[in-house]
Amino acid sequence: MKTTILKARWLLSMAPGSGVLNDHALVISGERIAAVLPWAEAEAQYPDAERVELGEHVLIPGLINGHTHSAMSLLRGVADDVPLMDWLQNHIWPLEKKWVSDDWTYQGSMLSACEALRGGVTYLNDMYFFPAAMARAALDSGIRAGVSINVIDFPTGYAANAAEYIANGLAAYEQFKGEASLDWTSAPHAPYTVSDETFVALRELSEKYEMQMHCHIHETQFEVDSSVQQHGMRPLERLNKLGVLNEKMMAVHMVHLTEAEIAMLAAQKVHLVHNPNSNMKLASGVCPVTALEAAGVNVILGTDGAASNNRQDMFGEIRAAALLAKGSTCNSTTVSARTALEMATIRAAKAMGRASDLGSLEVGKLADVVAVSLDALECRPVYNPEAQLVYVAGREHVSDVWVGGRQVLKGRVLTTVDQVGVLDRIEHIVGQMKAGL
Amino acid sequence: MKTTILKARWLLSMAPGSGVLNDHALVISGERIAAVLPWAEAEAQYPDAERVELGEHVLIPGLINGHTHSAMSLLRGVADDVPLMDWLQNHIWPLEKKWVSDDWTYQGSMLSACEALRGGVTYLNDMYFFPAAMARAALDSGIRAGVSINVIDFPTGYAANAAEYIANGLAAYEQFKGEASLDWTSAPHAPYTVSDETFVALRELSEKYEMQMHCHIHETQFEVDSSVQQHGMRPLERLNKLGVLNEKMMAVHMVHLTEAEIAMLAAQKVHLVHNPNSNMKLASGVCPVTALEAAGVNVILGTDGAASNNRQDMFGEIRAAALLAKGSTCNSTTVSARTALEMATIRAAKAMGRASDLGSLEVGKLADVVAVSLDALECRPVYNPEAQLVYVAGREHVSDVWVGGRQVLKGRVLTTVDQVGVLDRIEHIVGQMKAGL
Repeated sequence: MKTTILKARWLLSMAPGSGVLNDHALVISGERIAAVLPWAEAEAQYPDAERVELGEHVLIPGLINGHTHSAMSLLRGVADDVPLMDWLQNHIWPLEKKWVSDDWTYQGSMLSACEALRGGVTYLNDMYFFPAAMARAALDSGIRAGVSINVIDFPTGYAANAAEYIANGLAAYEQFKGEASLDWTSAPHAPYTVSDETFVALRELSEKYEMQMHCHIHETQFEVDSSVQQHGMRPLERLNKLGVLNEKMMAVHMVHLTEAEIAMLAAQKVHLVHNPNSNMKLASGVCPVTALEAAGVNVILGTDGAASNNRQDMFGEIRAAALLAKGSTCNSTTVSARTALEMATIRAAKAMGRASDLGSLEVGKLADVVAVSLDALECRPVYNPEAQLVYVAGREHVSDVWVGGRQVLKGRVLTTVDQVGVLDRIEHIVGQMKAGL
Repeated sequence: MKTTILKARWLLSMAPGSGVLNDHALVISGERIAAVLPWAEAEAQYPDAERVELGEHVLIPGLINGHTHSAMSLLRGVADDVPLMDWLQNHIWPLEKKWVSDDWTYQGSMLSACEALRGGVTYLNDMYFFPAAMARAALDSGIRAGVSINVIDFPTGYAANAAEYIANGLAAYEQFKGEASLDWTSAPHAPYTVSDETFVALRELSEKYEMQMHCHIHETQFEVDSSVQQHGMRPLERLNKLGVLNEKMMAVHMVHLTEAEIAMLAAQKVHLVHNPNSNMKLASGVCPVTALEAAGVNVILGTDGAASNNRQDMFGEIRAAALLAKGSTCNSTTVSARTALEMATIRAAKAMGRASDLGSLEVGKLADVVAVSLDALECRPVYNPEAQLVYVAGREHVSDVWVGGRQVLKGRVLTTVDQVGVLDRIEHIVGQMKAGL
């Protein structure tokens, strides 16, 4: 089994209670982490290992993007600065109806997977149509993914009704279930697009196959108001009655919350996926992260799709989470750099049900590792590498990435993918779409 | 006089009423813009010109950072996630008291000037001690600067009292007033640190020397409340009585504003410098940009210093201005991509009193030009280059920069500065400071 020693100036394991380690090495053996040791000890204990000498770098766990629609990279920038319902109904949904196919989804997902890996993201929790296409893109690019068995209760080019969505999703699951780098989620789109019956069916599917659930909830005030009108209750109350609010649920957005709802989320161990930049861009409002933190809810971070967050950049979400919480509460100590980094690593692994394997650089875990260079002029001087990662560094400073011990990015170049070919295929598809705009 | 044709896929002049030009060239003659023409016409009219062939780039006017403390790059990350007054009184002011000197200011300003140019910023509106040091750093790096004749009404290592601050500032002004790339501002630090008499003296200085004024105002609720307690009125009312609220004033932060104050700012043509990321990080609150826009106030953007906005990145401020305004008003159409770009270009030139020379790519103006590459995988596809600059591209995509026709960044490499030398001197100073922490 191949053993590799990664030597960098700093190491941030994100293990509970840990801090920044200076001059430590990470030892990878096969697909897992074999040791975290001072440089000299690592070299003494593993004399035959391959060495990767990094300079003024920080080693961190691979970042986990807790919510995206990978294929929507093909719609990056197609409609900006417009109101949400106009955006959905007059731009995004018609384009999706016309264009989305298995191949379209594959090519867009490949673009997002490449963007993610180049930005230090080793896990994409995706929600979209044609999950087999996402699965193939993840396998071809070498990224981990949460692939969705998704349902939206209206007909699309992918499926005609809930039963067909579920059947298509399960077929993809059966095809790829042996792949260790893929997880699967049971994914009702949102309370305003999914019926009670479908929520129950997806809950049962989640239980039967031991999958996490993945759902947009309380994204807009309009959604909440409509539910009160249609169902006589707020979406969270309805979902609670349907039995889906528990430790298996990854609830996305959650912008509009009462104190009682926050207490309920904490008590029932629901995971919350905060998408600060998407929520700002679509003017949905500000998720009350500080109150959620105080209540003990497990908050993680996602980008949302490229149609509503054109820059699929988890460094940007981490920074925005720290800044927006401070700005919106007038409390400069809330969501510290450490907390924001946890939301994209150890806490995210927990939300995905993968805490034993992912989310921190600890012995025995899978070697999903990112090297961030703090060499650039923009990153100097360095007083505190942890805060520097959040408030200074960007995804452009990611130099090297390993997923399960396999190096997928080397000196900012993808080793797994013909990047030129990916872009050529994207431009071909987008050329056709532009001709039809 | 040397003539150069810049050929790029797109050109965004930011002239009023203009849009995106495809396949246009910018012709630079000496230090000014000679023409903006379709490629073929430019080549026919200027057959002997040097050609710079850019690919999938957008040419834009050089960005103007409307407010920073350049030398504070030396304090980047020295204290994060702490309350504002703790941050100022227990971290920043003691460090400044101990360390700030002419050389310290020069070295820190050089670092910021390099960071700015590499990020597409061609003008730094600075406020700090030792303005001669800032002036030298600007001249040595090739960036334009607004240099401050600043006063803070307590003794520092730079000056003992207001008279000495002003005398020192005027001495620097006299030394460098012949330099066309430097403007000078009359800069009272803030209402809570500057007396009525000093405000009047700096107003008279602004009038005598035809300088803009540059002042932090209404940054925090604490500042406003203290003024009510001490002066019996809010800072803006006090400053209005002192006669400094007019078209010469660049009022920085302005987070806490009443409707009446907003109307007064518009009527008196005060320029407002919005610092979205600094205001979030220090938990000062959110400047009401949407209301200011509606009232017709000229709002521009600044980073603030690196101690409160560790990433001195105007692309980040432009994006944050567009996103934060939407998120804080639940209106997704406010502060469009176009508006946010104007705040960092044409509007900023107006605020600096330099609208006739700077802020847009128009014939006769100074050739301060930035080429942004949209070639990278992260920037594809491109539907709308204007929105792509705001919501997708980052400063890392800036490839080339010209200031007054002189190329200062070429393929991301600074042509004016020995970057390694700058960093060596920074590390030396910071090493000494860390030993004392």
